[in-house]
Amino acid sequence: MSETFPYLKSAGKAQFVDRHVRKAGELLQQRESASVTLLGAPLSKSSISHSGALLAPTTIRTMLHSYSTYSIEEEIELDDIQIADLGDICMHPTDIIGSQSRIYETVSAVTEKYPDSLFVLLGGDHSVSYPSIKGFSTKKGAVGVIQFDAHHDLRNLEDGGPTNGTPFRSLVESGVMKGEHLVQIGIRDFSNSKPYSDFAKEHGVKVYTMKEVASMSISSIVKESVACLKNKVDAIYISVDMDVLDQAFAPGCPAIGPGGMDSATLLEAIMLLGKEEMVQGMDIVEIDPTLDFRDMTSRVAAHVILTFLKGKKKAQLL
Amino acid sequence: MSETFPYLKSAGKAQFVDRHVRKAGELLQQRESASVTLLGAPLSKSSISHSGALLAPTTIRTMLHSYSTYSIEEEIELDDIQIADLGDICMHPTDIIGSQSRIYETVSAVTEKYPDSLFVLLGGDHSVSYPSIKGFSTKKGAVGVIQFDAHHDLRNLEDGGPTNGTPFRSLVESGVMKGEHLVQIGIRDFSNSKPYSDFAKEHGVKVYTMKEVASMSISSIVKESVACLKNKVDAIYISVDMDVLDQAFAPGCPAIGPGGMDSATLLEAIMLLGKEEMVQGMDIVEIDPTLDFRDMTSRVAAHVILTFLKGKKKAQLL
Amino acid sequence: MSETFPYLKSAGKAQFVDRHVRKAGELLQQRESASVTLLGAPLSKSSISHSGALLAPTTIRTMLHSYSTYSIEEEIELDDIQIADLGDICMHPTDIIGSQSRIYETVSAVTEKYPDSLFVLLGGDHSVSYPSIKGFSTKKGAVGVIQFDAHHDLRNLEDGGPTNGTPFRSLVESGVMKGEHLVQIGIRDFSNSKPYSDFAKEHGVKVYTMKEVASMSISSIVKESVACLKNKVDAIYISVDMDVLDQAFAPGCPAIGPGGMDSATLLEAIMLLGKEEMVQGMDIVEIDPTLDFRDMTSRVAAHVILTFLKGKKKAQLL
Amino acid sequence: MSETFPYLKSAGKAQFVDRHVRKAGELLQQRESASVTLLGAPLSKSSISHSGALLAPTTIRTMLHSYSTYSIEEEIELDDIQIADLGDICMHPTDIIGSQSRIYETVSAVTEKYPDSLFVLLGGDHSVSYPSIKGFSTKKGAVGVIQFDAHHDLRNLEDGGPTNGTPFRSLVESGVMKGEHLVQIGIRDFSNSKPYSDFAKEHGVKVYTMKEVASMSISSIVKESVACLKNKVDAIYISVDMDVLDQAFAPGCPAIGPGGMDSATLLEAIMLLGKEEMVQGMDIVEIDPTLDFRDMTSRVAAHVILTFLKGKKKAQLL
Amino acid sequence: MSETFPYLKSAGKAQFVDRHVRKAGELLQQRESASVTLLGAPLSKSSISHSGALLAPTTIRTMLHSYSTYSIEEEIELDDIQIADLGDICMHPTDIIGSQSRIYETVSAVTEKYPDSLFVLLGGDHSVSYPSIKGFSTKKGAVGVIQFDAHHDLRNLEDGGPTNGTPFRSLVESGVMKGEHLVQIGIRDFSNSKPYSDFAKEHGVKVYTMKEVASMSISSIVKESVACLKNKVDAIYISVDMDVLDQAFAPGCPAIGPGGMDSATLLEAIMLLGKEEMVQGMDIVEIDPTLDFRDMTSRVAAHVILTFLKGKKKAQLL
Amino acid sequence: MSETFPYLKSAGKAQFVDRHVRKAGELLQQRESASVTLLGAPLSKSSISHSGALLAPTTIRTMLHSYSTYSIEEEIELDDIQIADLGDICMHPTDIIGSQSRIYETVSAVTEKYPDSLFVLLGGDHSVSYPSIKGFSTKKGAVGVIQFDAHHDLRNLEDGGPTNGTPFRSLVESGVMKGEHLVQIGIRDFSNSKPYSDFAKEHGVKVYTMKEVASMSISSIVKESVACLKNKVDAIYISVDMDVLDQAFAPGCPAIGPGGMDSATLLEAIMLLGKEEMVQGMDIVEIDPTLDFRDMTSRVAAHVILTFLKGKKKAQLL
Ligand SMILES: [Ca+2]
Ligand SMILES: [Ca+2]
Ligand SMILES: [Ca+2]
Ligand SMILES: [Ca+2]
Ligand SMILES: [Ca+2]
Ligand SMILES: [Ca+2]
Ligand SMILES: [Ca+2]
Ligand SMILES: [Ca+2]
Ligand SMILES: [Ca+2]
Ligand SMILES: [Ca+2]
Ligand SMILES: [Ca+2]
Ligand SMILES: [Ca+2]
Repeated sequence: MSETFPYLKSAGKAQFVDRHVRKAGELLQQRESASVTLLGAPLSKSSISHSGALLAPTTIRTMLHSYSTYSIEEEIELDDIQIADLGDICMHPTDIIGSQSRIYETVSAVTEKYPDSLFVLLGGDHSVSYPSIKGFSTKKGAVGVIQFDAHHDLRNLEDGGPTNGTPFRSLVESGVMKGEHLVQIGIRDFSNSKPYSDFAKEHGVKVYTMKEVASMSISSIVKESVACLKNKVDAIYISVDMDVLDQAFAPGCPAIGPGGMDSATLLEAIMLLGKEEMVQGMDIVEIDPTLDFRDMTSRVAAHVILTFLKGKKKAQLL
Repeated sequence: MSETFPYLKSAGKAQFVDRHVRKAGELLQQRESASVTLLGAPLSKSSISHSGALLAPTTIRTMLHSYSTYSIEEEIELDDIQIADLGDICMHPTDIIGSQSRIYETVSAVTEKYPDSLFVLLGGDHSVSYPSIKGFSTKKGAVGVIQFDAHHDLRNLEDGGPTNGTPFRSLVESGVMKGEHLVQIGIRDFSNSKPYSDFAKEHGVKVYTMKEVASMSISSIVKESVACLKNKVDAIYISVDMDVLDQAFAPGCPAIGPGGMDSATLLEAIMLLGKEEMVQGMDIVEIDPTLDFRDMTSRVAAHVILTFLKGKKKAQLL
Repeated sequence: MSETFPYLKSAGKAQFVDRHVRKAGELLQQRESASVTLLGAPLSKSSISHSGALLAPTTIRTMLHSYSTYSIEEEIELDDIQIADLGDICMHPTDIIGSQSRIYETVSAVTEKYPDSLFVLLGGDHSVSYPSIKGFSTKKGAVGVIQFDAHHDLRNLEDGGPTNGTPFRSLVESGVMKGEHLVQIGIRDFSNSKPYSDFAKEHGVKVYTMKEVASMSISSIVKESVACLKNKVDAIYISVDMDVLDQAFAPGCPAIGPGGMDSATLLEAIMLLGKEEMVQGMDIVEIDPTLDFRDMTSRVAAHVILTFLKGKKKAQLL
Repeated sequence: MSETFPYLKSAGKAQFVDRHVRKAGELLQQRESASVTLLGAPLSKSSISHSGALLAPTTIRTMLHSYSTYSIEEEIELDDIQIADLGDICMHPTDIIGSQSRIYETVSAVTEKYPDSLFVLLGGDHSVSYPSIKGFSTKKGAVGVIQFDAHHDLRNLEDGGPTNGTPFRSLVESGVMKGEHLVQIGIRDFSNSKPYSDFAKEHGVKVYTMKEVASMSISSIVKESVACLKNKVDAIYISVDMDVLDQAFAPGCPAIGPGGMDSATLLEAIMLLGKEEMVQGMDIVEIDPTLDFRDMTSRVAAHVILTFLKGKKKAQLL
Repeated sequence: MSETFPYLKSAGKAQFVDRHVRKAGELLQQRESASVTLLGAPLSKSSISHSGALLAPTTIRTMLHSYSTYSIEEEIELDDIQIADLGDICMHPTDIIGSQSRIYETVSAVTEKYPDSLFVLLGGDHSVSYPSIKGFSTKKGAVGVIQFDAHHDLRNLEDGGPTNGTPFRSLVESGVMKGEHLVQIGIRDFSNSKPYSDFAKEHGVKVYTMKEVASMSISSIVKESVACLKNKVDAIYISVDMDVLDQAFAPGCPAIGPGGMDSATLLEAIMLLGKEEMVQGMDIVEIDPTLDFRDMTSRVAAHVILTFLKGKKKAQLL
Repeated sequence: MSETFPYLKSAGKAQFVDRHVRKAGELLQQRESASVTLLGAPLSKSSISHSGALLAPTTIRTMLHSYSTYSIEEEIELDDIQIADLGDICMHPTDIIGSQSRIYETVSAVTEKYPDSLFVLLGGDHSVSYPSIKGFSTKKGAVGVIQFDAHHDLRNLEDGGPTNGTPFRSLVESGVMKGEHLVQIGIRDFSNSKPYSDFAKEHGVKVYTMKEVASMSISSIVKESVACLKNKVDAIYISVDMDVLDQAFAPGCPAIGPGGMDSATLLEAIMLLGKEEMVQGMDIVEIDPTLDFRDMTSRVAAHVILTFLKGKKKAQLL
């Protein structure tokens, strides 16, 4: 607004403003130093099936503008957290492996430049986790991963190269991380094949199926998971494949199905993990906004980010 | 049907009729005296964001035709309840404040003409609750309000006038009701700002967040809420903002998000409230049928009405 | 509205009213005597493929409320035309042949009771035209039919009984009308099989393909069609299968395709036919509102009705 | 693929193949002898309201291709189960009763030819259960039925013939089964009329409403149900009307509503029933893929089939 | 991009860039001096029926990014045109008349600050044209208006105030412009009422119905229109209500119908008008992106803007 | 069907069959020798923007089942044409260039094995035309191409490799064909950049813009195009990018816009080209079924194939 044109706002910004409300989306700024860094990896040509997950970074950011910075449940205000929105990694139109290398190089550089910041990556499909965790590891040392997913993502690499079905296989086979440094929560019936469940077992991956999520409390699972990694690794990275949720709660994932987690359970897990100092990185993947209903799945993603920060703040880690 | 044309029914009414089934929608009639009065307030130009909630009164009524009058769970038949469908309040195309006055005047006249009837208002956005509760209060005396909502709706009135974000602020500031006569159930993280949570505290508003809904039983919350109001007010009015439900259960509200109530919990609360003699009014707001999926949210609304009546009948109040 | 409740209108009727605008939908009234009778035949279980055409009578009537009664092009006001909306014929849930008999009996009774009125039937799928034309013929004598359609609808009856692919075969085979009293306009490539085109030829059906519609003017085709029937029959009935239109103009028909008529051409034909005194009946069929986009196809149907009346009025036949 | 064209696969089959993954859909083959037989009954013209349930057999089969054959929760691999996909029963376009007879005759012949196989029927609307259970009974002797449904489906047959509202009335009235051999689980408020609940009572039908599902454990209900039938019948048939699920979990049923079961509960019940030797037949009905969101409801159906087989295998019955 | 992060682009900007392609959207910049000024008036609460036209300014701008700056037909490159995107006018949530005043004040100030620039306003509904043309007139002197519309928009102001049905009535009645300075092109049958057609006649409004558009060439109509205004006014303003197009070509307008213009005809008219020096202002209104299919209607709007500039450039006026 | 199960058809095939109707889809068979070969290239990861064109081969084949084999306009029956449906080329999940090589190798082998057959390729995005035409050329000698497209597709290869924006640049630069052997019909304003129009000019590409399509007859354009190529090449290949059509007629292309061709014009062009003996190959590209409305664009594609064969048959070339 200017004196000449008191009612004009820049294009697309002419929404109603309530002076007392701070939108969560406003936390994301292009800034130099920050306690949290966030960037998008808009890659989904690497998916086995047709996927529009490349569009999720934009949608999740937009959804952050639908929510505020205040947790009434914990009476925690996030508005003093500085998040550097580093933008999105530009992908190559016809070179998928090249695009994955760009993710690795960028995450590696980010972790180098912001060694003390929390790291958040918005996918993209799950293939982005291999280069992201590899890049994250360059500075962090041994990294443990807690993966929320209906699927192992431990497929062989011969049949189709580094797809969204292979990131943890790539990490284990390339030696970036050990199988026993991987915890998988939410693995589901009829969504995986026996040979890959066997691979998980053989490599010491800790697996919690939905049956266990239903019978144990999520807080016990989180506690066990962190305990299992704590003394073995230097940092923990959470990889949130949104299809860990039941299709009723995350209708916008490519590989939906019944019998999954509800969103309250996932958010509880995320807050508990946020409270752990070792948990320093996170990615959120497998949201295809073209398939979603009213961006419900990206709305959950926005809450995952905010709830993670709430956990950090509650534990005075931020 | 006539003798000449035995198969003709009036336009749009040629559906199959089962002689043993009574549709809930048939309870609504244009009649003079009734134990329940119902009317629509098709106003949503008052919403902060674009909203088609003006269309909800029609959709909710239509949905009542998809359900029957019989509760098998309680073995209660509602078919002898007389509901006067007073119709919809005509809104002014370009005068929003004027439209809200029409709501006030109409509700006031309804409460005057039908002093002993239960009152049900179908919004519209939440802005309708200010004139509705104000009108309801003219005859009823001190009114306590139990609000189901993800949001406080206690925004300041300076920034945008009486919108769907301000009804309870208006009520408190105009002296129609006291802050301590307001109970809010289902208030959610990242959906409100601290200044308005502070306002609630300062004015003695009783707030149950979703964390409390998850940890306490809904029956305890309802019991506490009624107990807290019972001796202070002359009548209780329930204001049901459908966005109190999780987005999976009420996909058709403008401000959807994860982490909300499920519909069974809301319906249990409504039945318990129905059983209270002091609860004499209700509004259902913030359903935008243009955003909904298969009118799911209006279907819940239809069940809210029927469950309220079931509660009344179970307590022999109807 | 009443004195007590000056702003209340009956449920669903609280729209803005401009005192100078007459909606076309208001012409339809339940009345005893009328110059036009209209009724719905909500039958589409008779369709070869899954069809929601049963819903079209309601949608077309609703669309008539989106348009006015005034033709500025011809400076003709339709507001003094009396249309008796006789309602819809009630269909049997599991007896399709029985439902078709109900159509026959009803149309027969309507033509008897209103011998001097124009007759309009809203389908339903095209199977309704057989009982409708049969009923129409009981009083009218020899009836000629001008059918707008991409398809012959002359399929054999052995393979599936009286479906939406057979009405004109039924009429010819049952002797209700002769093949040479049938004119088909808009028949399209790759939408019919040779045996049925041969049947048309053998029975003297006059066929104008889309190639002829494209190369001749529509007014010549209409003129020829009427001339061809005029001396042979006592009355002419127009059967408008909306799939005569290109899929761009009528996206809501079950059997859409490219290469069809545009809506201006169809409307011109209808006005020219309206000007003919012998044209006394019409049906509009094959609109499936569940497949349509924004009720576009029902909007064209509403214009077909109004344009027909405009033609009548222009020729001072109404 | 051939030597000349190493990259060609037959039309529509050129998807990525992971050598270690077996799709559940591959279990379905056209084969002569099998431990499970499956067929489709694509009939929904018999529905009271407009229904596209005829399309469900195709959609459910397609969804089976989205899931694998392995249950990680029970460490059970289904890939050695032989399912004979007998195809779909061809329906008559205009003779609904005739179509139902075709179902009866086919199921009867299937039970005769495959007396020792488990039987799975994919509807279609619920009207298919009458001819299916009648056919199933011809060889099996006295059949008990456990029906998952929001509705009794005990409507009178006079008003509309054998629709999707009448299958169990038909079975009881025709003497195919006794009322006390019928268990109904999930019956819901405002979804049934009193006269039909009375009919259920009078005929000894065992009814578990949603209130009981919510208050008892599903395993107790299943245990009681089986116990109640075990000594009275020769075989048990499960009839799964998907609308037993809450609208959030099964958005694609014609008669959706709030307050229903969640999918995890239904799947648990199905596994427990699968473990019972007497349970030898199943149908899945009332899924309308044209109304569904991302085939969610058919995805649940695919899991119902797989979970049933998992139960069988766990109990070493397969 | 930076040296540290060579692949990062700012959020949402990581699309592929072809070095030889200039997107039309890039012409819009926030700049001080410019030959064209453009701004949005996101107002549609003033609409008679529910309308999301407030969202169109954003959508139209986005669509300009889908097209280039080059006209191959005329071999004209627009990339040296400077467009100042002044942003959007902030609307008041509950004061519609106040919002319209803001439009008037802003347009008035824009015309004052940029007296020599072409002016483009993106609505919003058609109500914005009254304040816009009034503001445009403050500096320009007598303004003639060429309106493309299916409707007169000459409704009375008593029944509902200044809605999208009244802008030209307001202009004429308030004396901002004379009736004879208004040309209406594309007025359609059954879309207007006789009293308003009479009003047009009485006030000397020049009206071309669709019948005339179909029978005359659009270039003659444009020529006549300009000739009719040229000597009477100081500047000409084009008001493009997108519903002048047939529903097949502009499916995203609130008031769609058959029998309208095709987009090629509209674009030809716009280019011819662009070539006229007197034509100095334009608005584009009545696009509701929530109703549209794939933003087709906003895509036409983008072409209207570019084609207008092409005309200007062809006539060397820019 | 068998004797035991007279009503069973194999899964998904239980549709109604009319003994006198031959579906166009039935022409496609897996056979050894044929006068026409058809195959799918389900590749769209090569697209600049997100594209689901990989799904088009399946959709187009399905649409062929919605149409018959008979042209009533020309009284030509196609049912004796033998089309070998060779299936689809299997694409690599993460190696786009490798996938394009598979297209080249397959088309090359097909042209070798079926030297006298007409060749039809179903894309995929437009990137498939480079390997397809290159493969087609290996046996055919000098190939001329007539491209229907809104876009030149002559982008540079440096910025993003071989995308859907570059096929004709690749062909010209790699020497597979000369620029003067390329004719482009339907090129549109604001859909191309000047440098690429200049490239077309410099390399002798013959360009017909939409302005020329509108002012010349399509038959003259086709005649000129063929004449221009006839003496210079050994065979002609038609490349049909469906976005040559106006968005109203082909709503399912990724790059839609106004001002394009209508489908009747395209089909006329195709028939005329079919009649030319030199025209021996064709591809149809850029249909994204996930964006389409009711598969309209794939329906046009089905008609393009059938109309091409109609032309061949009319000229007695088949
Ligand atoms: Ca994953
Ligand atoms: Ca997953
Ligand atoms: Ca609220
Ligand atoms: Ca709320
Ligand atoms: Ca027909
Ligand atoms: Ca037809
Ligand atoms: Ca049922
Ligand atoms: Ca049911
Ligand atoms: Ca207008
Ligand atoms: Ca208009
Ligand atoms: Ca192209
Ligand atoms: Ca193109």
